[in-house]
Amino acid sequence: MSRIINFSAGPATLPLEVLERIREDLPEYKTTGMAVMEMSHRSAPYEEIHFGAESRLRSLMGLNDDYAVLFLQGGATLQFAQVPMNLLQGGQAGYIDSGTWAHLAHEEALKYGKAEIIASSRDSGYVRLPEISPEKIAQTWDYLHLTTNNTLFGTTFHDLPELGTAPLVADMSSNILGQPYDYQRFGLIYAGAQKNLGPSGVTVVIVRKDLLRKPADFVPTLMRYDLMADKQSLYNTPPTFAIYILGLVLEWTQSLGGAAGMETRNREKSDHLYHFLENAPQYRIRADKDCRSIMNVCFSTPNPEWDNQLVNEAEAAGLSGLRGHRSVGGLRASLYNAMTLAGVEVLTEFLEDFAERYPEMGEA
Amino acid sequence: MSRIINFSAGPATLPLEVLERIREDLPEYKTTGMAVMEMSHRSAPYEEIHFGAESRLRSLMGLNDDYAVLFLQGGATLQFAQVPMNLLQGGQAGYIDSGTWAHLAHEEALKYGKAEIIASSRDSGYVRLPEISPEKIAQTWDYLHLTTNNTLFGTTFHDLPELGTAPLVADMSSNILGQPYDYQRFGLIYAGAQKNLGPSGVTVVIVRKDLLRKPADFVPTLMRYDLMADKQSLYNTPPTFAIYILGLVLEWTQSLGGAAGMETRNREKSDHLYHFLENAPQYRIRADKDCRSIMNVCFSTPNPEWDNQLVNEAEAAGLSGLRGHRSVGGLRASLYNAMTLAGVEVLTEFLEDFAERYPEMGEA
Repeated sequence: MSRIINFSAGPATLPLEVLERIREDLPEYKTTGMAVMEMSHRSAPYEEIHFGAESRLRSLMGLNDDYAVLFLQGGATLQFAQVPMNLLQGGQAGYIDSGTWAHLAHEEALKYGKAEIIASSRDSGYVRLPEISPEKIAQTWDYLHLTTNNTLFGTTFHDLPELGTAPLVADMSSNILGQPYDYQRFGLIYAGAQKNLGPSGVTVVIVRKDLLRKPADFVPTLMRYDLMADKQSLYNTPPTFAIYILGLVLEWTQSLGGAAGMETRNREKSDHLYHFLENAPQYRIRADKDCRSIMNVCFSTPNPEWDNQLVNEAEAAGLSGLRGHRSVGGLRASLYNAMTLAGVEVLTEFLEDFAERYPEMGEA
Repeated sequence: MSRIINFSAGPATLPLEVLERIREDLPEYKTTGMAVMEMSHRSAPYEEIHFGAESRLRSLMGLNDDYAVLFLQGGATLQFAQVPMNLLQGGQAGYIDSGTWAHLAHEEALKYGKAEIIASSRDSGYVRLPEISPEKIAQTWDYLHLTTNNTLFGTTFHDLPELGTAPLVADMSSNILGQPYDYQRFGLIYAGAQKNLGPSGVTVVIVRKDLLRKPADFVPTLMRYDLMADKQSLYNTPPTFAIYILGLVLEWTQSLGGAAGMETRNREKSDHLYHFLENAPQYRIRADKDCRSIMNVCFSTPNPEWDNQLVNEAEAAGLSGLRGHRSVGGLRASLYNAMTLAGVEVLTEFLEDFAERYPEMGEA
């Protein structure tokens, strides 16, 4: 067997060391005599895993006790509802529309109260970030919602604009710990784990404790941030095995220098790929240069037929997951933390070879 | 290392064969060149796993195309809300209060409409099943909710009473596929996987398609049964690794004769333990004889101090998870499908030895 180079946008490639560690911990974890997934969530060995993962995340993000760290379920999609259900209690929120997921987050918020799009780059096909006028942001708003990295289009808020004092809520699913942010600037951060943090099935939510309050009665008990913070994500049975793997990925992230170390690594990989693409006339990069993502590189050949041929040949050559999102088309190479530079070098060699083998592609 | 005999009420012991198979499939699943948890949920190898698990479950439960099978997140606790959010649209529901979880399910339903307890054994401390008067059940109700097995108290509806024609909704978390039911009698069945089906982090929901309809606007998009049925649980990223393990556990269940084979196995184990307890004066069985669970055997010594001593000595002897739920006290041995008769025999030997070593316990 040989390991595929996996550019999937999520679930995504994981560090081989982590997979080998999971293997070693089966069928028995250390001296416990059982697998992690067999442990009661009320047992001491599981609590060590649970709070160990929390503690690593706090350390990696520099979070103090003003923040609660929650391990929830349902992915970012459920957070699109859970955020307004908990934070939009009769007031208003602002949304920055920088991509499809940001747009869906806003649509979901409309179910629960007033939510206004204050900036959008939808008309450009989301190839750039929207221009934000700080004067549009009311300081009285319950929150302002932002998507730090737009997975489908390959754009990122590398530097956060001036956004006033309303609590900043960020969907950080596709670049959490892939580059550092000043995490203390956020009121709430959420992220599905299946890109930079681990397997699908666990969602990390970090929330400033002063924002916690009992929501309206119609909110399902399990979706109350205040309760889940109080119960340390152990109100009911959490996704224990996913949280264990999350902890292993965080340990691996720490060993490589945390978010800063990851940014260096991710810039090296994405610089290599962008540099190649910029100099290859057969390929087009989707996003504007000043906001290009270091996690998701979105590009294309001159037409969908060549994109398709490329995806198929890449697959046969051991490079998988290069098809762009079905709503966008084109090609996409996701270079999450666990992707190696060596993997990206194989990709650029393949892209170069493909262009050479099909010179007619350049004339399409 | 030696494997502990794990009587935990969930997450619970899994078949060793399944744990070994997960190990074999790391770091690469078959010839895919990647681990299952690294696969895109839109990829062909993952779809084979996903629909394979669905197909096995349909086969094991004898479900025809009138039913949709969903793989959701959040456990039974989220279903306590999701069921009324989807099924209680301006009408009324009935609840049978046979245990703590049944009670909580009813309390959650009250947030979403009219929900009446039509029978309760709460006053008895839930040691027996409530008596149900079929004339109390209105045929016009949106549904009637039942918990087939009460994990905390060790009682079970082995035979379903006459319940009229309102759609029957069952929380089957702790005995799904542990004994057969006429599954076609149910309008909806839900079960957290972490007892008889696999790891925590995936919730199975089986729903008769004629009950599917778009719920009120305040229901989070991800909590719409109609949408999740339409998208075959792939509206967003499902908990792929948990679903893969679920599929392995279902394969193992099939190999041992399905729900009927499991019932034989579970009766053998529970008969052995109940028979011992009935004949040992130092131990008391919690539940009335006619409704005793074959999944959770709840018992106690004469007082909490001896219970505690027993739990500690059992732990040291390699028998874990025997402490009763914190709200109930006493002792509990959960004998889910993966528990072996040999494991239960070690337990009865331990209990006999404990009683002999502490004759003063009988006088307490």
